[in-house]
Amino acid sequence: MRSEVLAAVEAELAEHGYDGLTIDAVAVRSGVHRTTLYRRWKSVSGLLVDLLEAGADDAWEPADTGSLEGDLIAVNREVQAALTARPSVTQAVIAASFRTPEAAEALTRFWDDRYRRTAVLVARAVDRGELPAGVDAHQLLLTATGPVYHQLVLLRQPMSRAQADHHARIAAKAFAAARAADLP
Amino acid sequence: MRSEVLAAVEAELAEHGYDGLTIDAVAVRSGVHRTTLYRRWKSVSGLLVDLLEAGADDAWEPADTGSLEGDLIAVNREVQAALTARPSVTQAVIAASFRTPEAAEALTRFWDDRYRRTAVLVARAVDRGELPAGVDAHQLLLTATGPVYHQLVLLRQPMSRAQADHHARIAAKAFAAARAADLP
Repeated sequence: MRSEVLAAVEAELAEHGYDGLTIDAVAVRSGVHRTTLYRRWKSVSGLLVDLLEAGADDAWEPADTGSLEGDLIAVNREVQAALTARPSVTQAVIAASFRTPEAAEALTRFWDDRYRRTAVLVARAVDRGELPAGVDAHQLLLTATGPVYHQLVLLRQPMSRAQADHHARIAAKAFAAARAADLP
Repeated sequence: MRSEVLAAVEAELAEHGYDGLTIDAVAVRSGVHRTTLYRRWKSVSGLLVDLLEAGADDAWEPADTGSLEGDLIAVNREVQAALTARPSVTQAVIAASFRTPEAAEALTRFWDDRYRRTAVLVARAVDRGELPAGVDAHQLLLTATGPVYHQLVLLRQPMSRAQADHHARIAAKAFAAARAADLP
């Protein structure tokens, strides 16, 4: 039942945004009775939090392309695609995080988990000798992904896949070229 | 009158956030009658939009430190300070941009203007021979500022001034080292 309900939450969120998300619409779309939804998830905010927690339970891991640059390009393409999808569940969840503290906390936990999992690509690059040991994986991932999120979410301007690729390359080259002591 | 009203909007926004911003509170704080506020600004959203438009009218320009790296560090320090101020007007305005389309559009125009003005530091670096001609100033500024915004606004995690400095250095070095054809 949980997966059907969460699929309905995702679809409603994508179509109508957080403001248009209602327990009744989720009930109709999922075929689960509204009384059951209220009992288990309590509110629209509870549904959103559970959607993000389910995301943290999944088997997602970053692609292993064999190079730091390739791995970062794959990450940035995933981010760029998620943020430019029409409709975009990711954009709807981000908007929701500015509405309720519960959504903000759930999104912080979700991303914390995703960035931790993505750090494996930095460890692989260190093992291959592409990066100096001691590189701060999170700061490297911020260098690659931060410009994509900033442009598409906060500045609300376009960013092509090619530009997202370039930001991945900048991050790979900057961190590969630096001595560890010079890095954030 | 406008500057007194907007100073009151800024103070109320910083203290109570967009959800706590009311015409009545702005009237009390500014000493301007609520009827006047309603006539000229129509709504809370109208006050916020005017605050951002006033920001686009000001004389702000980026510091001229004599080097690309120094200029970018100054920009990133300003961003980091604005986002970590307690209370932060910038964070409140960003949150408001996810509440009303008018606020989102006003913030997009405000940042568009700020990034355009900041591009002068890239032109200066090209003139000094620090950067190849044809560099995309906006992509360079995104490389520096994007990680700071992403970490402090969307990921809701700390970023020190030293880390913000490092992201400025990464941007300066990456764009100075590249041939123009390799850049986003």
